[in-house]
Amino acid sequence: MSSSPTRNRRADARRSRAAILAAAVELLDSDPDASVDAIATAAGVSRQTVYAHFPSRDRLLAAVLDHLTEETVAAMEATGPGGGPAAEALLRLLDAADRTAGRHPALLARLGALPVTARDDQVRHAPVAELLERVIRRGQADGEFDAGLPAQWLVEVTIRLAHAASEETAAGRLSKEESRRAFHTTLLRALGITAS
Amino acid sequence: MSSSPTRNRRADARRSRAAILAAAVELLDSDPDASVDAIATAAGVSRQTVYAHFPSRDRLLAAVLDHLTEETVAAMEATGPGGGPAAEALLRLLDAADRTAGRHPALLARLGALPVTARDDQVRHAPVAELLERVIRRGQADGEFDAGLPAQWLVEVTIRLAHAASEETAAGRLSKEESRRAFHTTLLRALGITAS
Repeated sequence: MSSSPTRNRRADARRSRAAILAAAVELLDSDPDASVDAIATAAGVSRQTVYAHFPSRDRLLAAVLDHLTEETVAAMEATGPGGGPAAEALLRLLDAADRTAGRHPALLARLGALPVTARDDQVRHAPVAELLERVIRRGQADGEFDAGLPAQWLVEVTIRLAHAASEETAAGRLSKEESRRAFHTTLLRALGITAS
Repeated sequence: MSSSPTRNRRADARRSRAAILAAAVELLDSDPDASVDAIATAAGVSRQTVYAHFPSRDRLLAAVLDHLTEETVAAMEATGPGGGPAAEALLRLLDAADRTAGRHPALLARLGALPVTARDDQVRHAPVAELLERVIRRGQADGEFDAGLPAQWLVEVTIRLAHAASEETAAGRLSKEESRRAFHTTLLRALGITAS
């Protein structure tokens, strides 16, 4: 099991890719127009190495979006969605997503405005939706949430209310705290929980 | 008050504009790529007349969207939103909007995908949002809806749930009747009405 040249090359490639993505997140967050050259310099690799991993700037941006989604999903999974009351588990998931996304608001707003197909967007959101659905189904099975509406509909409602809340804050119509309260209250009501 | 040449010209211009918009709605609904020439022919006017009213195809499409919004607002106003229980008035408004929009699903899906700024979209939705807000504020003032959440937030929630419902139907995930039921149940819960 000693390291082979092939394995070393693969490990190098993984490290370069990770360094490029990390540099891209950091640079694009402060300057959404950051060039591929600037990203390569910040990552400590050549322009050619960036293009070897990401054939175009759009592909790099798509990879950044995937990377942030993976980060978000990891943070959500770390909240232990399988434990405790479903309502609390759901709010923990959403807070984790919000905290992770909240670290790069400018970048996400910019990437969110990229022309992506609805299909791309659905594929990218699938792991987030799956985590939410698991907790919602558990709450319905335990009688904690009303089971009269389809779980998939309630997942869709959860995601849309979350987006509404962050846009209300971004637009300055509600403070961060007001929108969080409005979101949570509305969501728990939608799930058929009256006391919370 | 007899008709003057100027007044006649203005009436002619209004009639042409209305004919062009009506032809554009009809043609674009069956063929989203319908040309300006085809729209001019269907409206019984020359290509030049179309361009005199709408300097570009994009401007024509924007006018079509404005026209459909006006039609929707008129249908909503015709439901008498000021009368009866607020919950019923709100569902009447939403059904009227759905019926009007439902006449041109393909066209609206296509126009909805046009690159419009969030600001354009907000300006266009403003009269719809105002109608919803009036009924929601009335329900809150009468104690029929919970007054603990901002009316503007509840308007935003109403619009987003409506879009979710029509997209679930369009994607074939819920039947028309299932999505209507899921939408109404969720909305009334969000408004803090437990019995409905």
